Amino acid sequence: MSKIKPAISAGVTAAVMLAGVAFAQEPAAAEASTAPAPDTAFVFNTFLFLMMGMVVMFMAAGFCMLEAGLVRSKNAATICLKNITLYAIATVMVWLVGYNVIYGVETGGYIGTLALWSADDSAALETGYSASSDWFFQMVFVATAASIVSGTIAERVRLWPFFIFTAILTGLIYPIQASWEWGGGWLDARYGFSDFAGSTLVHATGGWAALAAAIALGPRRGKYGPGGQINVLRGSSLPLATLGTFILWLGWFGFNGGSQLALGSLDDSIAVSNIFVNTNMAAACGVITVVVLCTFLKKKIDLSMALNGAIGGLVSITAEPLMPAVWQAALIGSVGGVIIFITTPILEYARIDDVVGAIPAHLFCGMWGTIIVPLSNSDATIVGQGVGILANGVFVFFVSLVIWFLMKIIIGIRASAEEEDKGLDDSEVGAPAWPDFSSQNPLHPAE
Amino acid sequence: MSKIKPAISAGVTAAVMLAGVAFAQEPAAAEASTAPAPDTAFVFNTFLFLMMGMVVMFMAAGFCMLEAGLVRSKNAATICLKNITLYAIATVMVWLVGYNVIYGVETGGYIGTLALWSADDSAALETGYSASSDWFFQMVFVATAASIVSGTIAERVRLWPFFIFTAILTGLIYPIQASWEWGGGWLDARYGFSDFAGSTLVHATGGWAALAAAIALGPRRGKYGPGGQINVLRGSSLPLATLGTFILWLGWFGFNGGSQLALGSLDDSIAVSNIFVNTNMAAACGVITVVVLCTFLKKKIDLSMALNGAIGGLVSITAEPLMPAVWQAALIGSVGGVIIFITTPILEYARIDDVVGAIPAHLFCGMWGTIIVPLSNSDATIVGQGVGILANGVFVFFVSLVIWFLMKIIIGIRASAEEEDKGLDDSEVGAPAWPDFSSQNPLHPAE
Amino acid sequence: MSKIKPAISAGVTAAVMLAGVAFAQEPAAAEASTAPAPDTAFVFNTFLFLMMGMVVMFMAAGFCMLEAGLVRSKNAATICLKNITLYAIATVMVWLVGYNVIYGVETGGYIGTLALWSADDSAALETGYSASSDWFFQMVFVATAASIVSGTIAERVRLWPFFIFTAILTGLIYPIQASWEWGGGWLDARYGFSDFAGSTLVHATGGWAALAAAIALGPRRGKYGPGGQINVLRGSSLPLATLGTFILWLGWFGFNGGSQLALGSLDDSIAVSNIFVNTNMAAACGVITVVVLCTFLKKKIDLSMALNGAIGGLVSITAEPLMPAVWQAALIGSVGGVIIFITTPILEYARIDDVVGAIPAHLFCGMWGTIIVPLSNSDATIVGQGVGILANGVFVFFVSLVIWFLMKIIIGIRASAEEEDKGLDDSEVGAPAWPDFSSQNPLHPAE
Repeated sequence: MSKIKPAISAGVTAAVMLAGVAFAQEPAAAEASTAPAPDTAFVFNTFLFLMMGMVVMFMAAGFCMLEAGLVRSKNAATICLKNITLYAIATVMVWLVGYNVIYGVETGGYIGTLALWSADDSAALETGYSASSDWFFQMVFVATAASIVSGTIAERVRLWPFFIFTAILTGLIYPIQASWEWGGGWLDARYGFSDFAGSTLVHATGGWAALAAAIALGPRRGKYGPGGQINVLRGSSLPLATLGTFILWLGWFGFNGGSQLALGSLDDSIAVSNIFVNTNMAAACGVITVVVLCTFLKKKIDLSMALNGAIGGLVSITAEPLMPAVWQAALIGSVGGVIIFITTPILEYARIDDVVGAIPAHLFCGMWGTIIVPLSNSDATIVGQGVGILANGVFVFFVSLVIWFLMKIIIGIRASAEEEDKGLDDSEVGAPAWPDFSSQNPLHPAE
Repeated sequence: MSKIKPAISAGVTAAVMLAGVAFAQEPAAAEASTAPAPDTAFVFNTFLFLMMGMVVMFMAAGFCMLEAGLVRSKNAATICLKNITLYAIATVMVWLVGYNVIYGVETGGYIGTLALWSADDSAALETGYSASSDWFFQMVFVATAASIVSGTIAERVRLWPFFIFTAILTGLIYPIQASWEWGGGWLDARYGFSDFAGSTLVHATGGWAALAAAIALGPRRGKYGPGGQINVLRGSSLPLATLGTFILWLGWFGFNGGSQLALGSLDDSIAVSNIFVNTNMAAACGVITVVVLCTFLKKKIDLSMALNGAIGGLVSITAEPLMPAVWQAALIGSVGGVIIFITTPILEYARIDDVVGAIPAHLFCGMWGTIIVPLSNSDATIVGQGVGILANGVFVFFVSLVIWFLMKIIIGIRASAEEEDKGLDDSEVGAPAWPDFSSQNPLHPAE
Repeated sequence: MSKIKPAISAGVTAAVMLAGVAFAQEPAAAEASTAPAPDTAFVFNTFLFLMMGMVVMFMAAGFCMLEAGLVRSKNAATICLKNITLYAIATVMVWLVGYNVIYGVETGGYIGTLALWSADDSAALETGYSASSDWFFQMVFVATAASIVSGTIAERVRLWPFFIFTAILTGLIYPIQASWEWGGGWLDARYGFSDFAGSTLVHATGGWAALAAAIALGPRRGKYGPGGQINVLRGSSLPLATLGTFILWLGWFGFNGGSQLALGSLDDSIAVSNIFVNTNMAAACGVITVVVLCTFLKKKIDLSMALNGAIGGLVSITAEPLMPAVWQAALIGSVGGVIIFITTPILEYARIDDVVGAIPAHLFCGMWGTIIVPLSNSDATIVGQGVGILANGVFVFFVSLVIWFLMKIIIGIRASAEEEDKGLDDSEVGAPAWPDFSSQNPLHPAE
């Protein structure tokens, strides 16, 4: 479903949807006579974008805290610098090219136009929201995808290769594949692919890019020993990681709720509310599932995995947070938790080093959330969803892989062994993150 | 006053109220002819619930940071795990039974129905807001009560007994007593009890449950020495505790402001604004009062007590944030600060170990805020308020006490002495919160 | 332009402005027939103040985290206490006198009235928003100015002199100079000074007060050695400083967006959206500029300077976030980044000790943002802007300087050398911020 263009008709769509969902009663509203006047609806829709966009913007802080808490202290300043800079880069790139690559695409097309964005409110009432509010909301989504990458490849990637990749990801890779669906391109026009708020288009995109980068970079020194040994390299601050997860959970209300793209009618406001409930329920069930699985299968309850359970639940519900009944949202989120629990060690056995567990949460749960959409949304098909997942994966993964390997050959992407042992804060930032506290963890090589 | 049902008439109520408050002038509005149309009001009311519910949800992060900062570092990961899991449990329990226990109650009744919640928007316009937005807003309130408990009993309670209690608290204990008032039960129908946003129904509930749990558990090892000695067991991070307090302060605008339950009229929007001002003023005066008292009576200014002054002020104004004049809000909050200052050491002399000072802030200030309602709200009486406080206290405290003692006998609620000395992060989570930094505080036994 | 009084006409103003900005097309709206009815616009405007005021309030937490992260750990509890107390003091002072000093001024006048504020909604519909929502929004602006001061003079100023100055700053200094412009006083009436959201009136005010205090106090012990030596005294937690910066960035959407003072029309909602985009763009370009300059000129990328680049960009756009085209916002923010990069070391050479870099960000970028307004806003003139900058600077700086020197003589403003070496947490708060972690940084004297 095209994410942007038909926002003005979202109310109608929602009414139809709602009629099919709960209580075989007549739809709750849709007497057009009492609907808010166009100007009022315009203000509501615009304000929805702004308020929801703000909390999605704040997800950049959530990713930053999550990642700073899950890297070792000697790399915490570097990851902070990466996270604030990647948001800045996303801002500039989505302005320079990204937005029009997504939304300048022709119906059924493959890529939009390489043109600067500027606000055009010449047909404001017909559009139904202000151009800038829409741009802002779309931009923070792009930044989210870039945030996913930084965590996976922390503690060994150099700053500038990461910045260059971020620019390409936010200016071209994300926008091209988003244009296929949200811009009304081929995936939307031909396959009826359905991804409400981006389980695939945002989260799997970030996950595939992270996987490609992790492969190109290789694991951190000391993560995998000889003979299949797997070492635990503990994160510097679980409280900060927890704070980050709470911020992400908060931001997800904006991420999914704002993706209704309209607030200014009775039906739209009901839809946003239902999305809030489902989003929250999926996250809660992701956490509980991991806690229960850890209790029965591991004796101790892994906090970072429980946090990732929340994120896994959130990613899982993102492809379709509106249509599921509450129990379906609970189920979808619970399976997300199971996926986190199962795939995190599998990745480790595959010797792929994902510092923050972003690939299980964003890639695997993103695919799960996308493929399960037909359970509650009869407009979607397994085939259509599969084509979308496949197209997104092939494109994002291979393009990312090529870029990372090109950079590896041309400029180098990884810190030297010595720099890595000392910590990237020393070589990249020149200042320790927590200078007053000594680091005496024997698990840290070379300290 | 029933918190939910008459929301559609809240505007009218507010208009009457406002007429009585400030400036003996004619009421500012109420020409019904210019009032927003029902659909527009519906969207406003729904959006109020969603936005305010979001920041109340974020209070879970605030409690988490406050508590993580006030426990010793060896228990900080465990408290993080507790806080995110309790929010998840509250989500599920309020869906499964809690909501309908509160709002399925008959007028004048004692308990609602044990039934799953599902969104019913079949009479949306008459209700005045979407069903899901209301559920979300109520749910985050229940989670807040559960958050209060976790802090008091930190550093010694085992995870699963806490989770079980949380499920009972959020599924039954809180909902039953809330049904008496906000569901329209006996306290509302017969005594005219008045608790606008829950000084008693939310905060004292959490406080009583915390007190019961603290009694059942006993104090932390090393907190009280032989011969009445009281040891200071310092929190691991005052900056995180401060951050948590700021988040709670932020969330309280949603907590109290959203409890107007309506935004979509001139009078409702004025009411929400007045609530913001009073809420902020009470918190500010709570802080200043503690700072001044510490300066004159203790020479040094205890930061954690100043933070608790803010929370005490906020809890104190929560029973009636709308009707007080600003100077009354300042007074109510200042007394909250005095209560914090006086009762914190009293609890210690009573050898009750409340790790984060939740009982002074939520229980004692909650009772204070409730009993002072008649000062500004002539609909409330001292007797009615006293009955409500008493009924809430007797019910929550004794039911909680029975549950904690039953669990103590059947499954055990407390970590072993050895586990407690090593820190619960080791035994429950299996990972330290801050692994890179050595712990060398001589006040920590067994380290 | 008067910030408050003509809010009801803001829509019209914006329509005129927009017509001049983008796309030589006919203005996008202004068919008054479809505009939201007065009551609906009232609710929108009021809700804008409340929501935006909330995130500006949260900037107090942002400043607190930024400053706690940039002071040494031995002073982190003290800075937390300062930040929460200054917000409380601002609340009380703006209620007692501040608000009416600003808005009780006569047209063309020099100071308002020394009178308690109370909410007057007797002419609510004509005003266009609720009185309390306006007070709340103005109050959090005053608190912001006070937050700026605390960072610069951290690690050596005693608590009570700081609190006293905060009371004078928030009750009189800020309000008097704000009355000249936002109250409709002489600067607005005679010089057409233009400062949309307060690059000068808020940020330079905080910056000048900070500079005066820094001069009166002198640098921290150990900051400047004999023979021009400059020592780096590292902040205790760069992750917390980064979190603080993200919170400030978030809050700035409220700071600038809410300063449109109205939401309830098509044009106002478009204006708020454009402000969001420009604010975000300036911040992003501030970060990128510092990152690029550090890369080419310093080899390593200074994280605290990159964070300050964001703040510098944000301050720079604050005087005029509505009128610039996006590329102009990018340029204005980039120059802000350059200013941070250049002036931070200059201050150090001048042996002025600004612990968090607040003077470059808030004072120098504030002046830059103000003087560049005529680039995009043809109503402003270089002369008018210069007069405003000068009047603000002379008044705030000298009054602040006199107060700090008077306090220095009468009560003393600085901790003793011994207290400073041990850290103010010991002498002022009596508790360390991070008691579990040893401090072994050789750069810390006397540890």
